[in-house]
Amino acid sequence: MEVVVGGNKRARRSYGFDEVALVPGPLVVDARDVDVSWTLGDKRFEIPILAAALDGAVNPLMAIEMSKLGGLAVMNLDGLQARYDDAEAVLQSIADAPQEGVVGFIQRLYAERPVQPELIRKRIREIKDAGAVAAVSATPLTAERAAEAAVEAGVDVFVVQSTVGTVRFESSQVPEFPVAEFCKNAPVPVIVGNTVGYQATIELMEAGAAAILVGVGPGHICTSRKVLGIGVPQVTATADCAAARDEYHEKTGRYVPIITDGGIRNGGDIAKAIAAGADAVMLGSTIAAAQEAPAPGFSWGMATSSADLPRGTRIRVGVSGSLKEILFGPAHRDDGTMNLVGALRLSMSSLGARDIREMQQAEMMVAPSLPSEGKSLQRAQGVG
Amino acid sequence: MEVVVGGNKRARRSYGFDEVALVPGPLVVDARDVDVSWTLGDKRFEIPILAAALDGAVNPLMAIEMSKLGGLAVMNLDGLQARYDDAEAVLQSIADAPQEGVVGFIQRLYAERPVQPELIRKRIREIKDAGAVAAVSATPLTAERAAEAAVEAGVDVFVVQSTVGTVRFESSQVPEFPVAEFCKNAPVPVIVGNTVGYQATIELMEAGAAAILVGVGPGHICTSRKVLGIGVPQVTATADCAAARDEYHEKTGRYVPIITDGGIRNGGDIAKAIAAGADAVMLGSTIAAAQEAPAPGFSWGMATSSADLPRGTRIRVGVSGSLKEILFGPAHRDDGTMNLVGALRLSMSSLGARDIREMQQAEMMVAPSLPSEGKSLQRAQGVG
Amino acid sequence: MEVVVGGNKRARRSYGFDEVALVPGPLVVDARDVDVSWTLGDKRFEIPILAAALDGAVNPLMAIEMSKLGGLAVMNLDGLQARYDDAEAVLQSIADAPQEGVVGFIQRLYAERPVQPELIRKRIREIKDAGAVAAVSATPLTAERAAEAAVEAGVDVFVVQSTVGTVRFESSQVPEFPVAEFCKNAPVPVIVGNTVGYQATIELMEAGAAAILVGVGPGHICTSRKVLGIGVPQVTATADCAAARDEYHEKTGRYVPIITDGGIRNGGDIAKAIAAGADAVMLGSTIAAAQEAPAPGFSWGMATSSADLPRGTRIRVGVSGSLKEILFGPAHRDDGTMNLVGALRLSMSSLGARDIREMQQAEMMVAPSLPSEGKSLQRAQGVG
Amino acid sequence: MEVVVGGNKRARRSYGFDEVALVPGPLVVDARDVDVSWTLGDKRFEIPILAAALDGAVNPLMAIEMSKLGGLAVMNLDGLQARYDDAEAVLQSIADAPQEGVVGFIQRLYAERPVQPELIRKRIREIKDAGAVAAVSATPLTAERAAEAAVEAGVDVFVVQSTVGTVRFESSQVPEFPVAEFCKNAPVPVIVGNTVGYQATIELMEAGAAAILVGVGPGHICTSRKVLGIGVPQVTATADCAAARDEYHEKTGRYVPIITDGGIRNGGDIAKAIAAGADAVMLGSTIAAAQEAPAPGFSWGMATSSADLPRGTRIRVGVSGSLKEILFGPAHRDDGTMNLVGALRLSMSSLGARDIREMQQAEMMVAPSLPSEGKSLQRAQGVG
Repeated sequence: MEVVVGGNKRARRSYGFDEVALVPGPLVVDARDVDVSWTLGDKRFEIPILAAALDGAVNPLMAIEMSKLGGLAVMNLDGLQARYDDAEAVLQSIADAPQEGVVGFIQRLYAERPVQPELIRKRIREIKDAGAVAAVSATPLTAERAAEAAVEAGVDVFVVQSTVGTVRFESSQVPEFPVAEFCKNAPVPVIVGNTVGYQATIELMEAGAAAILVGVGPGHICTSRKVLGIGVPQVTATADCAAARDEYHEKTGRYVPIITDGGIRNGGDIAKAIAAGADAVMLGSTIAAAQEAPAPGFSWGMATSSADLPRGTRIRVGVSGSLKEILFGPAHRDDGTMNLVGALRLSMSSLGARDIREMQQAEMMVAPSLPSEGKSLQRAQGVG
Repeated sequence: MEVVVGGNKRARRSYGFDEVALVPGPLVVDARDVDVSWTLGDKRFEIPILAAALDGAVNPLMAIEMSKLGGLAVMNLDGLQARYDDAEAVLQSIADAPQEGVVGFIQRLYAERPVQPELIRKRIREIKDAGAVAAVSATPLTAERAAEAAVEAGVDVFVVQSTVGTVRFESSQVPEFPVAEFCKNAPVPVIVGNTVGYQATIELMEAGAAAILVGVGPGHICTSRKVLGIGVPQVTATADCAAARDEYHEKTGRYVPIITDGGIRNGGDIAKAIAAGADAVMLGSTIAAAQEAPAPGFSWGMATSSADLPRGTRIRVGVSGSLKEILFGPAHRDDGTMNLVGALRLSMSSLGARDIREMQQAEMMVAPSLPSEGKSLQRAQGVG
Repeated sequence: MEVVVGGNKRARRSYGFDEVALVPGPLVVDARDVDVSWTLGDKRFEIPILAAALDGAVNPLMAIEMSKLGGLAVMNLDGLQARYDDAEAVLQSIADAPQEGVVGFIQRLYAERPVQPELIRKRIREIKDAGAVAAVSATPLTAERAAEAAVEAGVDVFVVQSTVGTVRFESSQVPEFPVAEFCKNAPVPVIVGNTVGYQATIELMEAGAAAILVGVGPGHICTSRKVLGIGVPQVTATADCAAARDEYHEKTGRYVPIITDGGIRNGGDIAKAIAAGADAVMLGSTIAAAQEAPAPGFSWGMATSSADLPRGTRIRVGVSGSLKEILFGPAHRDDGTMNLVGALRLSMSSLGARDIREMQQAEMMVAPSLPSEGKSLQRAQGVG
Repeated sequence: MEVVVGGNKRARRSYGFDEVALVPGPLVVDARDVDVSWTLGDKRFEIPILAAALDGAVNPLMAIEMSKLGGLAVMNLDGLQARYDDAEAVLQSIADAPQEGVVGFIQRLYAERPVQPELIRKRIREIKDAGAVAAVSATPLTAERAAEAAVEAGVDVFVVQSTVGTVRFESSQVPEFPVAEFCKNAPVPVIVGNTVGYQATIELMEAGAAAILVGVGPGHICTSRKVLGIGVPQVTATADCAAARDEYHEKTGRYVPIITDGGIRNGGDIAKAIAAGADAVMLGSTIAAAQEAPAPGFSWGMATSSADLPRGTRIRVGVSGSLKEILFGPAHRDDGTMNLVGALRLSMSSLGARDIREMQQAEMMVAPSLPSEGKSLQRAQGVG
């Protein structure tokens, strides 16, 4: 679906969550028979939901809770947990700070203290001691040093994550991060991201990534689009990467899960991400809105602390309920932000999909959200 | 009109009411000569409008009034009328409840009392005693037991309705609802829904449905889309099912009417639904806004009472006039929510359509509602 | 550009003013050399602007003023001017009435007094006595009787106008209005409308119409779309009818001007209507906002007075300046509602179009108005 | 991508900044290795940003500052700097004027004093004496006289700019401006504009333009579209002109840079303009919001002073920081209006583009901004 935008410049039409909808067919399956589990390396997870490596979303407590509930939380090894012994007090001070000047306040907190390997080890042990799965993330710049401490402490999953994560990086200043070597040497599965596009995904799979994080500036109106002009809507990004996964799988026999990361706001978006080809999804604000979250009611991105080009601020996400309620209900909101797993099961049931792989084949329609609709659609809630 | 949304994922472009408009041709017919009747089994209805099985829309009084005016109201056999002897008092208590906590209040009212077969019989007899046509609805889970009582009481039309109603249902827990057997054994016409899509519609017709309810999460921005990701815009859904009806009709000689259910807000939407292929439409909030409605000024969906995944709340629909004014005018509003039949006649007149079957052939254009227009379009009201 | 909206239902994509923009080429002409005149029958008009037959837009005074300035105002022979001797007082009373209940107030004023032939004659003579061109309108139902009085009084142009004006009208109740006979017998040019579509336009031209009014429910979000589901965006409607005009012209040698009527809000829309193929445009609210307008600051459509299906109300249009300022400037607003002729000249100049026929060939792009743009486009005002 | 808008009228689909997004590929380059310089004639500029010839954006001080920072500011020779000796006081009086009546106030200030050649010389010498590059602009009407003074004072770059600037101009009143002769005789590079479209661009290049300003009414909802109906979205306009540049380059060996002028609001738009084919961009309001700007916090277009058809007013642009902060950061806003060069470098880095020519090949997607998205896309700020 390529168009000419002008002259010789061509562009593909891309699609975000709000432009598509899922379509039932002639078969419905019982929601109780729906299997939403997925597998990363040799680990099976009961629910296809990961918590993103944001300081406002994941601390050891949240990692333990997510693991108990069948999901996976990723802790950020470049964040406050690895910089401050008493991270919880620092997180609370961010939640308590006035909005005015909060970006500068956050910038200072991250700049003042370096990452400390002993804190990395301590946090991971807190998670492991509770019998939970420990997953952590670092950037290509910090991954090698962080991995050393993390592996020593018994980490289960390692994530290497940057805005645009590729195998190929050219620089006259620093050596290229050796993705393939890192994956090969790591004694645990390495998830790499974020990426978009068929070719970049194939290269990451060939380099040995255990799973791929999909999503670069996915929102239609997000900071990356305003600041950098960059952003691929998530339905297109996910379907592109899923095509790479399927072809790589067919060729090599190795199945590399695709994790859609970014832009997901509700149960409907989770269902659409999987129908677009994802094996699991990564959530940030939705998790940061749990009662158990590190800085209750608030979240901020890692790019907030960037000294010269901050892309983000502290946002109020509110507190919607316990993590268990957010994942399994009961929902006391009807906006799709609670009972995410229940919603996914019901969606899959209605679409006749018994597991994630079948859900990836669900029928999709292009059905744009129009601004003028939705006001008096109360009847839509009628006979459900 | 299939597009590639990414990778190998394809999607059809779909259309809702706000994206299309009807187009006059070279013939106008006198509105007084327009016939808007339709037929269900051996019953002829003067107007192609059904009232939806919502507790806030249909009680015995409304059923009687709709029948007198030539339409058909469907009473919900899983609702308050079948649970409470003094249902009107309970309905009034919902209308009177403060918004805060109203979902929990409604949930309790539905949970506290089971459906009672003697109340089913009583409600239907109230309708029949007034000489009106009695139509009732149940879900696949409750249909068989409810039908027994309903038939005994002399019901005229039975509706089996669920979010996604299909012939095929797979479960390790409960037996499949036997659609074909139920339709065959029922001594009255059985309407089945809700459905979308050619294949599901064909299967329901082959199973013996007397009419099909079309519509699954039809709104562009509705709860089903947010919670489940599911939703088919109604123009596309209706046209798909109408194609199935026409082919089935040609093959078997049996004509199974298509009833568009959900997302209809005004006379324009009714005209578009029929032009898309519907034989009749089902309305909820518009009917709940009648003076005679069970809980004047309010409506709520059945999914509001879902314990773990409520998809809806009590909404204020206001009171726009008597049912007669809503259907036949005079209108004292210009938003298209009153004199629906008058508007449909005038629309058909302008399009040169003498009856519903001709209206199904009306020319349609894709003509999106743009947010920036409509502000100063007063002239559009000019020379009408 | 036909799409399948579902099943076997097809629909053309249509376009309104806000979705297109005009594109300069390699030639600019001096605005002073631009000729914006057009011809109706044997009458030449200096500017391609007509005032619509709304009681809030045209009284004899306005007709005289428009004629002096080179345009043409159409007076409504079914309106207050033909019902009340002291129409100005009645108009003032509408302007003074509180908004609450104004529709009923207007309905009564139109219902209480019948149209009086002697008032028709009086109004036309007022216009003719001032040396101005007199144009009047009636509906098919009232045209024959009104025309008798109008012709007697020396009218110059007669307009037969209804929501959908076609040659063919089928009725068991009333005889068809004989368009061809009426045009043939009238001693003056007869403009007929409103119409859309190639075939309907061809038939009206063959019936002898001197010009065609184009536009049925043209707004994207207008009352006709909400109430009737009917509405054709004006760029598409104009281009369709212009194609009929050009083919009819080629075949018969008779050139029948196309007048775009409805949905025009500013100078940009006028330019686009002509670029889509129009020979002239008809304006309502924009003219009703003149200081000289009959009910300064207000307008209302004829359908407002419909007893059972009112489609409109009294709207506040404000007072933007004298008619001369609205047409020729100077503008003291930058929203494109003043100096309409100056704007059209500058637009044609920039597009290299020396006259209306060349402007009809101007290059057009599909360039949707996006809600998110336009906020900080101040630079667009920069180097003009 | 031509569509039929109706009848025989065809139109190309065009694209603006908000409808496209840039797409990373499998290569990332180090931002420190990115080269954003461009060349005009024999002059190399370190950053591809020009300040527009608005009185609210450029005075000699700003020209000096821009030059020091590697960019180029264009001073308007028809503006206040060339009319008033104490221009700074006049500019301050505009900033201080109440909004009510400000258009008339500005109109009088421009009308009261003619352009004075000695002031032209004085301003340019102020810039040259500071060792900066001096660029000035005039319209075709004033260019010849202004150029004489400017060249005498040692100007480095001359800009001839009008709303639609073409080689061909037909007039019965005034002689055509001899573009080719002017370019040939000028001892300095002459930038010409504004233009859109392949053919017009080719003709300007053949006439000897040293660079082309691209952009005519580029905003989707801008005054030119409302008043004149004219406006080409900038992505399409830029790509069209870039195609002309590349073909002309291939044929003649002369490379004529394309400068996208208008509608650019943030770093993302700059990246998109270059990815569409531009060599540099021209900014107005963004520069007028610098602390050093002539009328701090305000801007107004030249068309504001038009006596009969004002297209613009004085707008409040605010003060976002020093020019250096706007261009090179640090940003203390996350809306993409600060650290524009840093953002461009990071964007190019993420897209694997080492220089402007490579950035012109960046992959682009059509990815519309939807009104319903962007609310809860905080996660998009997450892992950047």
